[in-house]
Amino acid sequence: MKFGGTSVGDDKIIGRVVSIIEKYSSEGNEIALVVSAMSGVTDQLHAIASEVEKSSDNPPVDAFVNSLRSKHKKVLDAVAKDESESVMKEIDKSLENLKNILTAVHNLRELTLRSKDYIISFGERLSAQIVSAALRQAGISSVPLNGCEAGILTNTNHGCAHVLPESSPRIKSRVVPLMQDGVPVIMGYMGCTGEGIVTTLGRSGSDYSAAIVGAAIDADEVWIWTDVDGIMTSDPRIIEDARVIPEISYLEAMELSYFGAEVLHPRTIEPAMQKGIPVRVKNTFKPDLPGSCVLSDKHRDERVVKAITFIDKVSLINLAGAQMFGRPGVARSIFTALAESQVNVMMISQGSSESNISLIVDDDHLNNALTALNRVQQGGYIREVTYDRDVSAVAVVGVGMAGAPGIAGRVFTALGKAGVNLMMISQGSSEVNISFVVKHDDGRKALRVLHDEFMLSEDSE
Amino acid sequence: MKFGGTSVGDDKIIGRVVSIIEKYSSEGNEIALVVSAMSGVTDQLHAIASEVEKSSDNPPVDAFVNSLRSKHKKVLDAVAKDESESVMKEIDKSLENLKNILTAVHNLRELTLRSKDYIISFGERLSAQIVSAALRQAGISSVPLNGCEAGILTNTNHGCAHVLPESSPRIKSRVVPLMQDGVPVIMGYMGCTGEGIVTTLGRSGSDYSAAIVGAAIDADEVWIWTDVDGIMTSDPRIIEDARVIPEISYLEAMELSYFGAEVLHPRTIEPAMQKGIPVRVKNTFKPDLPGSCVLSDKHRDERVVKAITFIDKVSLINLAGAQMFGRPGVARSIFTALAESQVNVMMISQGSSESNISLIVDDDHLNNALTALNRVQQGGYIREVTYDRDVSAVAVVGVGMAGAPGIAGRVFTALGKAGVNLMMISQGSSEVNISFVVKHDDGRKALRVLHDEFMLSEDSE
Amino acid sequence: MKFGGTSVGDDKIIGRVVSIIEKYSSEGNEIALVVSAMSGVTDQLHAIASEVEKSSDNPPVDAFVNSLRSKHKKVLDAVAKDESESVMKEIDKSLENLKNILTAVHNLRELTLRSKDYIISFGERLSAQIVSAALRQAGISSVPLNGCEAGILTNTNHGCAHVLPESSPRIKSRVVPLMQDGVPVIMGYMGCTGEGIVTTLGRSGSDYSAAIVGAAIDADEVWIWTDVDGIMTSDPRIIEDARVIPEISYLEAMELSYFGAEVLHPRTIEPAMQKGIPVRVKNTFKPDLPGSCVLSDKHRDERVVKAITFIDKVSLINLAGAQMFGRPGVARSIFTALAESQVNVMMISQGSSESNISLIVDDDHLNNALTALNRVQQGGYIREVTYDRDVSAVAVVGVGMAGAPGIAGRVFTALGKAGVNLMMISQGSSEVNISFVVKHDDGRKALRVLHDEFMLSEDSE
Amino acid sequence: MKFGGTSVGDDKIIGRVVSIIEKYSSEGNEIALVVSAMSGVTDQLHAIASEVEKSSDNPPVDAFVNSLRSKHKKVLDAVAKDESESVMKEIDKSLENLKNILTAVHNLRELTLRSKDYIISFGERLSAQIVSAALRQAGISSVPLNGCEAGILTNTNHGCAHVLPESSPRIKSRVVPLMQDGVPVIMGYMGCTGEGIVTTLGRSGSDYSAAIVGAAIDADEVWIWTDVDGIMTSDPRIIEDARVIPEISYLEAMELSYFGAEVLHPRTIEPAMQKGIPVRVKNTFKPDLPGSCVLSDKHRDERVVKAITFIDKVSLINLAGAQMFGRPGVARSIFTALAESQVNVMMISQGSSESNISLIVDDDHLNNALTALNRVQQGGYIREVTYDRDVSAVAVVGVGMAGAPGIAGRVFTALGKAGVNLMMISQGSSEVNISFVVKHDDGRKALRVLHDEFMLSEDSE
Repeated sequence: MKFGGTSVGDDKIIGRVVSIIEKYSSEGNEIALVVSAMSGVTDQLHAIASEVEKSSDNPPVDAFVNSLRSKHKKVLDAVAKDESESVMKEIDKSLENLKNILTAVHNLRELTLRSKDYIISFGERLSAQIVSAALRQAGISSVPLNGCEAGILTNTNHGCAHVLPESSPRIKSRVVPLMQDGVPVIMGYMGCTGEGIVTTLGRSGSDYSAAIVGAAIDADEVWIWTDVDGIMTSDPRIIEDARVIPEISYLEAMELSYFGAEVLHPRTIEPAMQKGIPVRVKNTFKPDLPGSCVLSDKHRDERVVKAITFIDKVSLINLAGAQMFGRPGVARSIFTALAESQVNVMMISQGSSESNISLIVDDDHLNNALTALNRVQQGGYIREVTYDRDVSAVAVVGVGMAGAPGIAGRVFTALGKAGVNLMMISQGSSEVNISFVVKHDDGRKALRVLHDEFMLSEDSE
Repeated sequence: MKFGGTSVGDDKIIGRVVSIIEKYSSEGNEIALVVSAMSGVTDQLHAIASEVEKSSDNPPVDAFVNSLRSKHKKVLDAVAKDESESVMKEIDKSLENLKNILTAVHNLRELTLRSKDYIISFGERLSAQIVSAALRQAGISSVPLNGCEAGILTNTNHGCAHVLPESSPRIKSRVVPLMQDGVPVIMGYMGCTGEGIVTTLGRSGSDYSAAIVGAAIDADEVWIWTDVDGIMTSDPRIIEDARVIPEISYLEAMELSYFGAEVLHPRTIEPAMQKGIPVRVKNTFKPDLPGSCVLSDKHRDERVVKAITFIDKVSLINLAGAQMFGRPGVARSIFTALAESQVNVMMISQGSSESNISLIVDDDHLNNALTALNRVQQGGYIREVTYDRDVSAVAVVGVGMAGAPGIAGRVFTALGKAGVNLMMISQGSSEVNISFVVKHDDGRKALRVLHDEFMLSEDSE
Repeated sequence: MKFGGTSVGDDKIIGRVVSIIEKYSSEGNEIALVVSAMSGVTDQLHAIASEVEKSSDNPPVDAFVNSLRSKHKKVLDAVAKDESESVMKEIDKSLENLKNILTAVHNLRELTLRSKDYIISFGERLSAQIVSAALRQAGISSVPLNGCEAGILTNTNHGCAHVLPESSPRIKSRVVPLMQDGVPVIMGYMGCTGEGIVTTLGRSGSDYSAAIVGAAIDADEVWIWTDVDGIMTSDPRIIEDARVIPEISYLEAMELSYFGAEVLHPRTIEPAMQKGIPVRVKNTFKPDLPGSCVLSDKHRDERVVKAITFIDKVSLINLAGAQMFGRPGVARSIFTALAESQVNVMMISQGSSESNISLIVDDDHLNNALTALNRVQQGGYIREVTYDRDVSAVAVVGVGMAGAPGIAGRVFTALGKAGVNLMMISQGSSEVNISFVVKHDDGRKALRVLHDEFMLSEDSE
Repeated sequence: MKFGGTSVGDDKIIGRVVSIIEKYSSEGNEIALVVSAMSGVTDQLHAIASEVEKSSDNPPVDAFVNSLRSKHKKVLDAVAKDESESVMKEIDKSLENLKNILTAVHNLRELTLRSKDYIISFGERLSAQIVSAALRQAGISSVPLNGCEAGILTNTNHGCAHVLPESSPRIKSRVVPLMQDGVPVIMGYMGCTGEGIVTTLGRSGSDYSAAIVGAAIDADEVWIWTDVDGIMTSDPRIIEDARVIPEISYLEAMELSYFGAEVLHPRTIEPAMQKGIPVRVKNTFKPDLPGSCVLSDKHRDERVVKAITFIDKVSLINLAGAQMFGRPGVARSIFTALAESQVNVMMISQGSSESNISLIVDDDHLNNALTALNRVQQGGYIREVTYDRDVSAVAVVGVGMAGAPGIAGRVFTALGKAGVNLMMISQGSSEVNISFVVKHDDGRKALRVLHDEFMLSEDSE
C-alpha cells in the first residue's frame, strides 16, 4: 500500500502526477492522493476575502471568480478533456458558493473566522476535482473527497485547527475502501468540526493532511512530492556542493524544519513518526531520483553531523538584570508579553547566572518585541534590554552527536580558527542540534567552514 | 570616605569588626556600618513565627524570648561591659515588642506578611544595639539606626521588598551627618514603606542594604566583610588549587552569583555598578588579606576566563513537540505554569528548530515542575516531557571571552578530549558566560579540566 | 410641516395611506413618511434566518424568496401598475441579496448578530419601494430611503440598537430637502453604524424611527397611523364602554405603555417629548376620526385619572428573609441573577421592613426566574421564595393624581367595597401611576369598578 | 426549661438579672443565660482598635485597659464581693490579651478583620465573668462560656458572621448538661470558625446568639430582657398613647424591625420562628410586666392592624426613562451600583409601566446613591434621576390585613381626608405591611391619623 501527497501547480505537474500514479498503481500499489490548491490560488483567496470585507465600493467578486474559473478550466481541458463538461458543472457549483460567500461577506462587511476558513478551502475544492478527473481520464477510477468526507475531524481553532485523535478510525473506514479499485483524491489543508463546519489546518496544511491520512490508513510509506530533489545537507544557494541526504531520522528532519521549511514542516513528521511510517520526499519533475527518506533512528547512517541549517538574517535581543535571579515570575512576564504581541521566539538562551536571557526573533517581529519588553522592564526587575538586528543563526544537526563527546569542540574550534565570534550558543538535551548565532557578516563563512569540517559534500560510505 | 557591611556572628567577630573600624577610622576614614543579625537568629525567628501561627497549644514564646535575651546579653557583656545595663534596657524593650507580636499572632492564629516581616526584623534590631555599644566602648561615637531611620524606603512587597529610588537622598541626609564624628550602625535587611511599615529585603538583604547605603552616600568603596578570603576561581571544595581573584569586573561577579552565592548576591552588585563604586570582599578573620575587588571592566586583567562555577546537582527537563514550532503562546504557557508553581528556572535553551526547550531546575523543584508541565502538555502542543535528575551545571565566566573567537572551541575541545558529553549548552549574547550541563558523574571532571585548561590556579601577571 | 409613520399591511392599507398623503399634501403640508414591513414579513424573516442556520439539509431558500416576491409583486401591481416593471427590478436586486445572505448563513451554519439584522431589514427594504412607487403613481414625487441614507446613525448593539444624538443633524440635512417637492419614504426599524453596518432598532422600531425622524426635522406633529381609533381609557375587550382619550400627556402615555403596547411604545414618546412635538395616533381606516393626541402636561384636561391599564395574567414572586435587612448586596444578587436569566421584572415592591421583596414577571419568565432566584437563595440571606402564577396587574394612570390627596383612598375603598383583595401595591414618586396586583379572578372586576368609579366612559367637559 | 438573653448595663442591672434568675430557677426552671458587653464597652473597643491602627504616636493603650479594668472591677465588687479576687485574676488575663493585641495592631499599623473581631469580643469576655460570679455569689452554680465553648460555629465572614447549621447539636451537647444544676453564662455576639478563630455576629449579635442557643436547646421560650416594656403599637415619642402589644406574630414582629430596632432585630426572630419557640420581650426594670410575646400566627388576636412604624427622615430617589421598559439589565445596573457604594435601599417601588423606579434610602446614603446612579445614567437608559431629602416613611403592619379587602381603602381614605399626599406606596404579597412615603411635614400627622383610625391605643377585647 502506498500513499502520496502532492502540490498541484499547473497542468504539467498534474500530468506528471497522473503518470506517476499510473506507474505505481500498475505495479499493484494501493494509493490515496492528497492534493493542495493550484499555485497562487490560496493566496488569491486570502486577498479577495480581505478585500471584500474592507472595500466600501463594489469589490471585483465577479471578475475574481471568472478568472479563477478560466484558470481551472484551462487546466481541466488539458488533463481531462473527456470529462471537461461534467466536471465544470461541479466546479461551477463550487464557484457559485464561493461567489455567494464573498458577496455576503461584503454586504455585512464582516469576515468571521468561520467564513474565512470556508473561503480559503475553495482552492483545494477546485484542484481536487481536476486531479480526480485527470486520473479517470487515464483510466484510473477516482473520486474527490473533501476533508470532511475523508473523516478529518478537527477542533474549532479556525485558521490553524488541530486534528483530533478520533479522526483516525473515521479516515480509515472512509478512505481504505476507495483504494481497493481506485485512487481517491483528498482535498488537503481542510477538515471539519463535529458539527460539520469547515476548518483549515494552517501552514503546510496539505502535507500535514497527507501525514494524518497516511498514519490513519497505516500506509507503508508517505510520499511527499515537491519541487526539490530532497532534504539537503545545507542551503544550496550558499553551499554549492550541498548534497541530498538519502536517509535521515525523524528527529533530524524535525530539527531541520526552519531551514527546511520549503521541504517538510515538523507537523508533517510527527504523525508518521508516531506510527513509524517512512516519509519519502521526492521531486515531481525527477521521479526517478531517490529523494530523501525520513525514517526512524535505527536506519541512520554513521555520520554524526547530517546537515547544517542557516537563517540569514534575524535579530538578537538580550535582557540583563541582577534582580531576575531567582524570580520565577520574570520569565513568565517576558514570554507572556511576547506572546501577547504575537512575537515568535526562535532561540532562547539563559545561562546559569540567571541574570541574562538572550532571544532570537524574526526581523519583522523585533519592533513589537522591543515594545513588549520595554513594558516588562517597567516592572523593575530587568536592568536593560539591548538588541542587534544584524545576526545570522546556524544549527548543526545530527542524531549521532548525542553521546558523542568532542563534536561541540570540533564545531567551535573550526569556527574559532576561522575567526568567527559566537554571540549566542544553544544546545538542548536532545543533543541533536547545536544552534549558535554570529554576526551577519560571519554567517556564510560559518556555514561553509562547518560544511567542510564535517565533509558533508562527500557521500557517506 | 569608607563604608563597611558585615555579618555579626558572635562576640569574637564583633571584636574583630571593632578593631577593623578603629584602625580605618583612626586613618581618617569616615565610616558607616551595616550589620546583619547574629548567626542563626533570623532562622530562629522564622521558625518561631511559623510555630506560633500554627500551634494550637501554648507555644514556647517566653522560653524563646528568654534564650534570645541570654544569647545577646552574653555577647553584649563581652564586647561592651560598661554599657551593658543601659543597652539591655533597649534590648528588653525590643524583646517586649517581639513577645507581644508573637503572642498576638498566636492568639489570632494569623501571620500576615506584615507581621512576619516585623518579627524577622528583630535579629538586626538586637545585633545593631550591641555592635553600636561595642564601638562606643572602644571610644568611637556611634548610634544604631533601623532601616526606617536610615532612610531606606521600599515598596510594600513584604518579604522581598524593592528599595525605591527616592531612598538615595533620604539615606544621604540622615547617614552622612552621623559619619562626621562617629560610625553609625545601620540595621541591614530591613526598610520601611512610606507609611512607616517595616519591610524586609529578601535573600542577602544585609549586603544589599550595604550596597544601597554605599551608593546613596557616594562611598569611595563598599566593603563586604565575610568569612571567606574573596571571590575564587572555582569551588575550593572541589578544586583545591582554586585561587582568590584579586580584581573582577561587575559583570563577571554577577555571572558568578550562583556558585558565589555565599559571597556576593548579584543584587548587591547592581547599585554599586550603577555608581561605579568598587565593592571589596574581605575576610573578617584575615583583614590584612587583600580580598577581591569588584570594579568596572576597564580595570580588569587580561585573562579571558576568570572563573568556573559549578552546581553539583540539578535536574534537566526537556520539552519536545513539532507543534511548538511557530507558536508564541507555547513558551508563555510553559513559563506561566512554572511561575505559578514557584519553580525557578536556572538555565533555558531553545535551538533554532523551535521543537525542543531544555530547562535546568533545582532538584527540589523538579516534581512541581513536572506536574505543572504535564498540565501544559494536556494543551496539545508538547509531545513529550522528559527529565534527568542527575546532572551538573558548569559555567565558564570571563568578560574577555566577548569578541574573542576560539574560546568556545577551547572549552569544548578540552571537554571532548576528556570524554565529557554535553547534555545542554547555553551562551547568551553578553558572551561573559558559557554554561553547559553534563552527567553528574562528569561534573567534577569537567570543572577540573577547564580550571587546568585556562590555568586558573596560576597568578596572572 | 407634517410627518407620518405607518404600518403597511397590504394593498388596501397602502391605498389608504396614499389618499391620506394626497389630501394632506394638497393642503400644503410637507410630509415625510416612515414605513414598516408588510404584515407578517418580519416574523417570516426571523423564522427563515433561524432555519437556514440550523438546518443540515438544504433549507427552502428559493421557495421562501419566491413567495416573498409574489406577495410583494401582487401588492405592487395593485398600487403602482405603471412602475411595476422598473420597481420589480429594484425588488429583485434586494431579493438577490437576501438569497445570498441566507445561502451564506446556511453554508457556514453561522448566524452572526450582524447577518441577522441584515436579513431582518429586508421587510422594510421591500415595502418602502412599493409605497414610494404608489405615491409616484398618484402623482406625488417620492424616493425610498433606507435607514442609513436617511441619516439614522446607531451604536453597534445589534437587534436593539440605540440611535445616536449625532443622527439629528444628518437626518435633517438629508430628509428635509426631499420634502420640498415630494414625500420621501423612509424604511423604519433600521439604522446603520458609523461604518455603514445595518442595525435594527428592536420592538416597535418603526414608530421609534418615526419619532426620531420627526424630532430631527422639527416636525409640527408626528402622526402614528395604526389600526385602532386612539389611546383608550381601558382595554375595550373588557370594558365595552371604554372611550378614546382625545388628549393625553406624554407622561400618561408612557405609563400606559404596557397595556397600550399595541398603540405606542414609550420609546416612541421620548424623542417627541424632548422636543415638545405632539404625537397624534390615528386609525388608517377611519382617517376622519380625531384619534388621540399626546402632548405636554399644560394642555391636559382636568380629570385626575385618565385611564386604567390591565395585564390579564402575570406571575407574582415573593422573596422573604430577615437576613435581607440592611444588606445592600441582596438586591444586587437578585436583579443580577434575573438579568442573567433574561427575566424582565414588570413590578417591584419592597416595604420598609426590608424583609420582603415582591416582583411581578411575565408568565413565560416565571420558571427562569425561580431557577435564578433559587440560586440566589443558596447564598443564605433569603429564607423563602414563593410565587403565584395566577394574578392580574392593574394600573390607574393620571397626572392629575400628583399632589391630589384622596385618590388612593378612592381607588382602594372602591376595590374594598367590591371585595377585591390587594396582593401587592406600588406607587412611585411620579404619582402618575398607582399599580396593584389582584387574584386573577378579581382582575376584570377591579378594572370595571375603577372605570366606573372615575367615570371614564363619560366625556370630560 | 427556660432561657434568657440580656444586656448587662451596670451593677444594678446585673443585680436585677440575678434576682430574676433566682426567682425562675427556684421555680424549677432550667436556665441558660446569654449576655452582652457592659454598656458602651463595645463602642469603646471599636474606637480604640481604630485609634491604635492609625495613630503614629503612642496610643493610650495602658490608660484604656486600666479604665476598662476599673469599670469592671467596680461592678464585680458590687455584685460578687466574695469572688472578687479570683475573678479579677481571670479578668486580668483577658485584659493582658487585649493589651497585647492592641499593641501588636499598633506596632504593625495593621488591623485585620480577624484582629478586629478578636478585640471586639472582649466586651462579652469581661461581662460574662462578672455575671457568672454574681450568680455564684447568689448561690447558683454557674460557669462562663465563650462563643466557641458554647458551640457557636460560624463561617469566616468576620464582622457579620453567619451561624452554621452544625452549631445546633454542638450547642445542645455543651450547654444542656450545664443547665442541670446551674445556669451557664454564654458570651453573646461571638462565635468561632471551625479552626477556632474568633468571629462576631454583627448588629444585635447578643440577641441573635440568644435566639440561636434557644433554638438549639429546644427552649420552651426565649426571653429577651431589655429596657423597654415590650413591642409597642407605634413610636411612643410621637404617639403618647401608644400601647404595648401583648401578643404579636413572628411575621408582624419582623415587619416592625426598622422602627422596632431597639427591641428586636429580625435576625433574632428567624431561628425561633423556625422552631416555633415563643420569644418574650421583657423589661429588666419591671420584670412583673407581661411584656410582649412573639409567637406563631395561630395565637394572634383579631385586630387586622397591629402597629404603625415610622421613619422620620429619609430620602426618596426617582429614576425615570422610557428605555428602562423591557430591559432586565437596568435594574441590575441600578442595584449593583448602589451595592458597590454600600447604599442600603429601604423601600423600592416600580409600577407596571416599567418606566419609573422609586427608592427610599437613608439620608446619610443619599449622596453616595446619587453619585452611583449618575454613573448608571451615563449608560443611556435612564432619562432622569430626581430626589427629595425631606420625606418620612410609614408602615401599617398586621397579618390580619392579608386577605381582608378594604384595609388599604381605610388607610388611604383616612390619609386623604387628613389632606396627606402620598409620594410612594409599596405593599408586598405577604400583605402584612403597607408602606408609604409622605412629605416630612405630613409624617407625624399620618402616624397619628392611622393610630386613631385603627384604634390602636385601645385594648383589644
